[in-house]
Amino acid sequence: MARHLIAVDWGTSNARAWLLDGKATPIAQSTSNKGMNRICKSEYNRTLASMVGSWLSDSVSRNIIACGMLGAANGWVEAKYRTVPCEPVLPLQCTSVVTSLENCVVYIIPGIKQYRPTADVMRGEETQIAGFLAGKPQFNGVMCLPGTHTKWVHISAGEIVSFRSFMTGELYDLLSSRSILRHSVASGEHLTEDFLEAASDQLSQPEKLAARLFALRAESLIAGLDAPRAGARLAGYLIGAELAASRPYWLGHRIAIVGAPRLAKLYSQALSLVGQEPIKAEAEQCTILGLAQAHAQSLT
Amino acid sequence: MARHLIAVDWGTSNARAWLLDGKATPIAQSTSNKGMNRICKSEYNRTLASMVGSWLSDSVSRNIIACGMLGAANGWVEAKYRTVPCEPVLPLQCTSVVTSLENCVVYIIPGIKQYRPTADVMRGEETQIAGFLAGKPQFNGVMCLPGTHTKWVHISAGEIVSFRSFMTGELYDLLSSRSILRHSVASGEHLTEDFLEAASDQLSQPEKLAARLFALRAESLIAGLDAPRAGARLAGYLIGAELAASRPYWLGHRIAIVGAPRLAKLYSQALSLVGQEPIKAEAEQCTILGLAQAHAQSLT
Repeated sequence: MARHLIAVDWGTSNARAWLLDGKATPIAQSTSNKGMNRICKSEYNRTLASMVGSWLSDSVSRNIIACGMLGAANGWVEAKYRTVPCEPVLPLQCTSVVTSLENCVVYIIPGIKQYRPTADVMRGEETQIAGFLAGKPQFNGVMCLPGTHTKWVHISAGEIVSFRSFMTGELYDLLSSRSILRHSVASGEHLTEDFLEAASDQLSQPEKLAARLFALRAESLIAGLDAPRAGARLAGYLIGAELAASRPYWLGHRIAIVGAPRLAKLYSQALSLVGQEPIKAEAEQCTILGLAQAHAQSLT
Repeated sequence: MARHLIAVDWGTSNARAWLLDGKATPIAQSTSNKGMNRICKSEYNRTLASMVGSWLSDSVSRNIIACGMLGAANGWVEAKYRTVPCEPVLPLQCTSVVTSLENCVVYIIPGIKQYRPTADVMRGEETQIAGFLAGKPQFNGVMCLPGTHTKWVHISAGEIVSFRSFMTGELYDLLSSRSILRHSVASGEHLTEDFLEAASDQLSQPEKLAARLFALRAESLIAGLDAPRAGARLAGYLIGAELAASRPYWLGHRIAIVGAPRLAKLYSQALSLVGQEPIKAEAEQCTILGLAQAHAQSLT
C-alpha cells in the first residue's frame, strides 16, 4: 500500500515538488526554473521526471497531485476553471494527464473564476486556501494571499464567495528592476518606518499614487534619498494603494494572511495602519496541506 | 557668416539632430539609437560626428546647441540643474564641450530641478517650454508635456514656477509589454469610447487603480475582452490616474499640451472629461524652436 505521495506546485516562473509522508510532512523537495512561461507542452513530462523520478518506489503513490499554471490553457493540459461561489478544491474535479513516468498520472486541481462583480481568475491559490481551511475549517472572513498577483478572498462557510486580484508584486518588480526607478531603489532591507509612512500617505490620499513614483527618482538625484529607503517607500506606496483599493475586503472582516513570511509581515504591518490584526499562515505549508488533502480525498 | 545651425536633442533612448536655416526650419535631420542609456562618455564624440559631420560647411555655425540627457551626470558632460522658479532656458548658462569635430563646440542647455513642495527634475522639457513660450510669450497657465515621464508645469510671467513628473508613459510601456497584461493588451488602435470610460472611472474612483489592472487580464481570459479594447482601457486608467493626481495643476488653469500628436490627443480627450479645453502644440517643433532661440541669443 502506498503511504507516500508526490505533490507539485507548477507556477508561472518555477515549479516545486515534494515527496510527502502520510502526515503531509515533506521528506524530499525539488525545484525547477521551468515554470509555465519557460517551457512548451512537450517539455512537462521530461521536467517532471527530472524533478520526481528518483522518488518513485513501491511505497509511493503513482497518482501525483498538482496545482498551479500547468493547468492553464497554455500549460500542460487545461484544467477548466470552476466558478464562484464554490469550495476551493473539489478533488474529484481534477483533470488527469497520463505521463511517460512509470504508471504515473498527474491530477491537476482546477483554478477558479469569477464573472461578477469583476472578472477574475486564480490558479494555485485555491489549493493554498483549501490547505489553510483544513487547519481552520470554521474560518469565516477574508484571506489575503500576497504575491506577484495578490488575491483577496471572501470565505464563508468553507466556500470562496468572491475574490479580487492585484498586480502589486509584479508592479514592484517591474518598477524596481525595469523602470527609471531601478537606479534609485534597492530591495531587501526592511525599513519599517519609511514603509509605514509611505503606506499611510497612500491610504490617506490614494489619488496621489501617480505623482509619488517619479519623486523617488528625483529625491535620489537631488535630495540624497538612499536606495533602501526609496525601496521601502515604493513598497509602501504600492501596498498602500492595494489597501485603498481592497477596502471592501478588509473593512470589518477578520483577516488571514497566507504568504511568504517577509511579504506577510509587510501586509500585516500595513494593515495595522487601518486597525487590523490579521492572523498569518505560511504559504508553502498551506500549499502542501491543500495538495495532500486533495490527494487523500480522491487519489489514495 | 554662418547662417545655418545644428541643434541636437539627446534623450535617454535616442538622439535627434537637425540642420536648421536662419528661420529655424529644418533642412536636414538625422537620428541615432545611441541614447544616453546605450553609450558611455567616450562614444558621444563619434556618435555626434556620424549624425552631423556631413552637414559642416562654411555657412554652418560651429557652435552646436543641445538639450536632453547628454547633460545628465552619467551623460556626456554634466550641465548642472538650475532651480525653480526660473526662466526655462538661460542660454548663457549652457555647459560647453569641445568636440573632436572640426572646431565644433557643443553647448548643453541645463535641466531644471525643484526641491519643494516635492523633489523633481527635468532635462529636455525646459527647451520645449522655451520653444512654446517663444511663440506665446504671454502664456500664463499650466503646460502638460506628455511622454515617458509626463511633466505638468506651472508657468507664470515667462518663468517655471513649479512642476511635477508622472511615470505614466513608462508604466504603460512596462505593463503592456513586460507584465502579465502583455498577453491581453494591444496598443495602436485608438478606441475613444473605451479609453474615455476607463479614464472617467479612474477619475471618479481614483483609489481603485490597483484593482483595475489585473481585471484586464481576467476579462480577456474569461469574458472575451479583446486586446485593442484592453489597451485603450489601460491607457485610460493610467492617464485617469495621472489626472487625479495632477488635479492641483489643471484645476482652474489654462492648459497647453506640448506633445507628440497621438499622445496630445489622448490627454486632450481625457481633460475634456473635467471640462478642460487645452490648446495643443507639437513637441518636436517646440524643441527645435527652443534650441534655435537659445542659439540665437548666445551663440551666433
